[in-house]
Amino acid sequence: MSLFAKLLVLNAGSSSLKFKIFGVQPFVAGVGGMFDRIGDAVNCTFKASTPSNSPGEKGRKWEIKIPAKDHVSAMENILQFITENVSSGFSREVIAVGHRIVHGLEISQPVLLDDTTIGKIREAAVLAPLHNPPGLQGIDAAQRVFQEVPQVAVFDTAFHQTMPPHAYMYGLPYNLYEKHMIRRYGFHGTSHQYLVERTAAMLDKPVSETNVITCHLGNGSSVAAVRGGHCVDTSMGMTPLEGLLMGTRCGDLDPAVVLHIQKQLQLSVQDTDTLLNKKSGLLGLTGSNDLRAVIEGAQHGETRSALGLAMFVYRVQKYIGAYTAALGGKVDAVVFSAGIGENSSIIRELILEPLKGMGMHMDRAANDATVGGRLGDISDPASPVRLLVIPTDEELAIAQQTLQVSGGTGGTALRMYRGGTGGGRRA
Amino acid sequence: MSLFAKLLVLNAGSSSLKFKIFGVQPFVAGVGGMFDRIGDAVNCTFKASTPSNSPGEKGRKWEIKIPAKDHVSAMENILQFITENVSSGFSREVIAVGHRIVHGLEISQPVLLDDTTIGKIREAAVLAPLHNPPGLQGIDAAQRVFQEVPQVAVFDTAFHQTMPPHAYMYGLPYNLYEKHMIRRYGFHGTSHQYLVERTAAMLDKPVSETNVITCHLGNGSSVAAVRGGHCVDTSMGMTPLEGLLMGTRCGDLDPAVVLHIQKQLQLSVQDTDTLLNKKSGLLGLTGSNDLRAVIEGAQHGETRSALGLAMFVYRVQKYIGAYTAALGGKVDAVVFSAGIGENSSIIRELILEPLKGMGMHMDRAANDATVGGRLGDISDPASPVRLLVIPTDEELAIAQQTLQVSGGTGGTALRMYRGGTGGGRRA
Repeated sequence: MSLFAKLLVLNAGSSSLKFKIFGVQPFVAGVGGMFDRIGDAVNCTFKASTPSNSPGEKGRKWEIKIPAKDHVSAMENILQFITENVSSGFSREVIAVGHRIVHGLEISQPVLLDDTTIGKIREAAVLAPLHNPPGLQGIDAAQRVFQEVPQVAVFDTAFHQTMPPHAYMYGLPYNLYEKHMIRRYGFHGTSHQYLVERTAAMLDKPVSETNVITCHLGNGSSVAAVRGGHCVDTSMGMTPLEGLLMGTRCGDLDPAVVLHIQKQLQLSVQDTDTLLNKKSGLLGLTGSNDLRAVIEGAQHGETRSALGLAMFVYRVQKYIGAYTAALGGKVDAVVFSAGIGENSSIIRELILEPLKGMGMHMDRAANDATVGGRLGDISDPASPVRLLVIPTDEELAIAQQTLQVSGGTGGTALRMYRGGTGGGRRA
Repeated sequence: MSLFAKLLVLNAGSSSLKFKIFGVQPFVAGVGGMFDRIGDAVNCTFKASTPSNSPGEKGRKWEIKIPAKDHVSAMENILQFITENVSSGFSREVIAVGHRIVHGLEISQPVLLDDTTIGKIREAAVLAPLHNPPGLQGIDAAQRVFQEVPQVAVFDTAFHQTMPPHAYMYGLPYNLYEKHMIRRYGFHGTSHQYLVERTAAMLDKPVSETNVITCHLGNGSSVAAVRGGHCVDTSMGMTPLEGLLMGTRCGDLDPAVVLHIQKQLQLSVQDTDTLLNKKSGLLGLTGSNDLRAVIEGAQHGETRSALGLAMFVYRVQKYIGAYTAALGGKVDAVVFSAGIGENSSIIRELILEPLKGMGMHMDRAANDATVGGRLGDISDPASPVRLLVIPTDEELAIAQQTLQVSGGTGGTALRMYRGGTGGGRRA
């Protein structure tokens, strides 16, 4: 493999295209960035930056107005930008492209893209109408621009495919599963898997002997219960709406309330969907979908902010308890990650302080010190359950899986990477 | 108070009227029974029986075809039956009538019925359209037949009113609570409260110092977390649809699935409601809503029965875990009750065996022996958490609360009753 071999990771939204480049030998993150407002001739912008720890070009940043009319045009512009500013031979150096795809139905592994897989992603769009179609556009754009390069789909749902049926089935007529694919899938799988592998490394135990509860707490949030490296349950469901209280999503809810709201407010199915996904959660309760603002409001004595904060915390506690039961009380570590989990020592303290009686003893000083993307053990040395903060890095995990699937040596790369102590930060 | 003073407990369904009579001094259950298929001139039947432990008339039973055209006619027939067969002076002996009312909004106590309370029950009918209107018919019937007798409403929701806002609020826009009363209410409250009081007595601790997780497992099932006698959370929600897997109800479900089903199956709101409430749960998964049949199917190797059984068990485990967290890990006892909880040692074993690691150590012999309405401690003597089976008795609890509210001495009566070891069985 060429010394200059590179991997390109793509994450396409409806009007955005995020990218990040990874070197293979050594396996290291390079330039990353995104196109935003694709199709908007006036406001379409392109941003990019080098990692803050990269040698030579420490924290270099770009922000340029480039109108990209569609995802293909955005992809072409990204290629041109990299060729001009980073590496003139980039188009020849890319050995594989990895795509983050939200919904992969019952696909349990990253997959080399072919017509069958693309058909599956299209089929899954019925369950993820907002996410899978842009993913397909990203795939199409990369296929046009990098015609001969292997492309890999890495699914947000794949890691959770080890859940047993009693965890993934809903209490509905069985044919809704058989004919309509209605079941729990779970999301953030790439992140949960990454956290589990890092946890095992930190505990110096084989993944196969490590039981973890991973809390990915960001604007979207989910918890997973993982026994010996295999996910046994997770809080998001058929869609990312179920589970924890989120920025704008309601999370767990009496299903009868959905129907009651439709009747009482005379809302259509679509409007009810918008209400539950976009106008609920912290936003609906407090007026802000930003937990930092909610915490500040609570500190200033605002009743609804205090309620939103208490609800956010309580739901995480309930899932930690439920998943402790799912793991038969045998929990090696509880891990906090993503925007809120990595940065809010207040939230971690509010969650953990009342759980002392469950063997989760936090060290306050360690907790206060572990913010801003730091990796750390925030548990008291005597705590039966380890409490860890691990910065997640989905792009790195996607790059590693892309390398493995496309015939490279991702496993080695990750092991090399694991030797370090710092975690890469998400774009 | 007359030596013959009696209490009448009523539980009205849409086409049924259950009753049970209690003596006051001593406080003891008497004849109970029900009218079924009220309004059906051909099939309307009346059944009644004396308690199996009553002196003199051991286990006497009646079953008679009496057509009752409405709840008032049923009530008149019950009065006539009691007068002719049990006590000729019954109409003068009844000192209070207690009504089981399903939904009481934010009413936290049993209440002496007046126009205001009846208005509240009517208002709550928007949230319990199948349950509160028959309750009002039962009240109307009793008021016509026992004109001067105090009537008391005992609400299924009342005990759960001590839940803190972070447990009862949903992650929805706040005005849905303010304007539409949408929140968690919880049900089976009379049963959970009764179980908590019996638990404290069994543990010989004051209720105010007892933390309990009560599992009411019947055709409808719910779990409650109770700290010092106050409910802090419960699995049913705004309606009895949320929470555990039930006979025909789906329980917990990604709220997005409700909307997805409507779109995919082109169902109306009403048909979706019927699907989730009447065609889901064990019935939808296995073809039978009877857990005994499901267990039998699983024992014969039927895959779907095994799935339904595993899901029923797993959901109880998750709630026990979640509520262990809600109680900060300080759980004195986990209690099993109602049809399944009192009678199925298999279900209790399946639930508890994997929870050893949470300090819940079952004694297999004690578990196997505690069936058929027996009261028992099924935990290993060394178990940090007591595991109890307590037959519930909602009618007795309603009678006791009715006596208290109507000016009697229910508290004393319950203390007297608690002296015994046997639990009354539900009709």
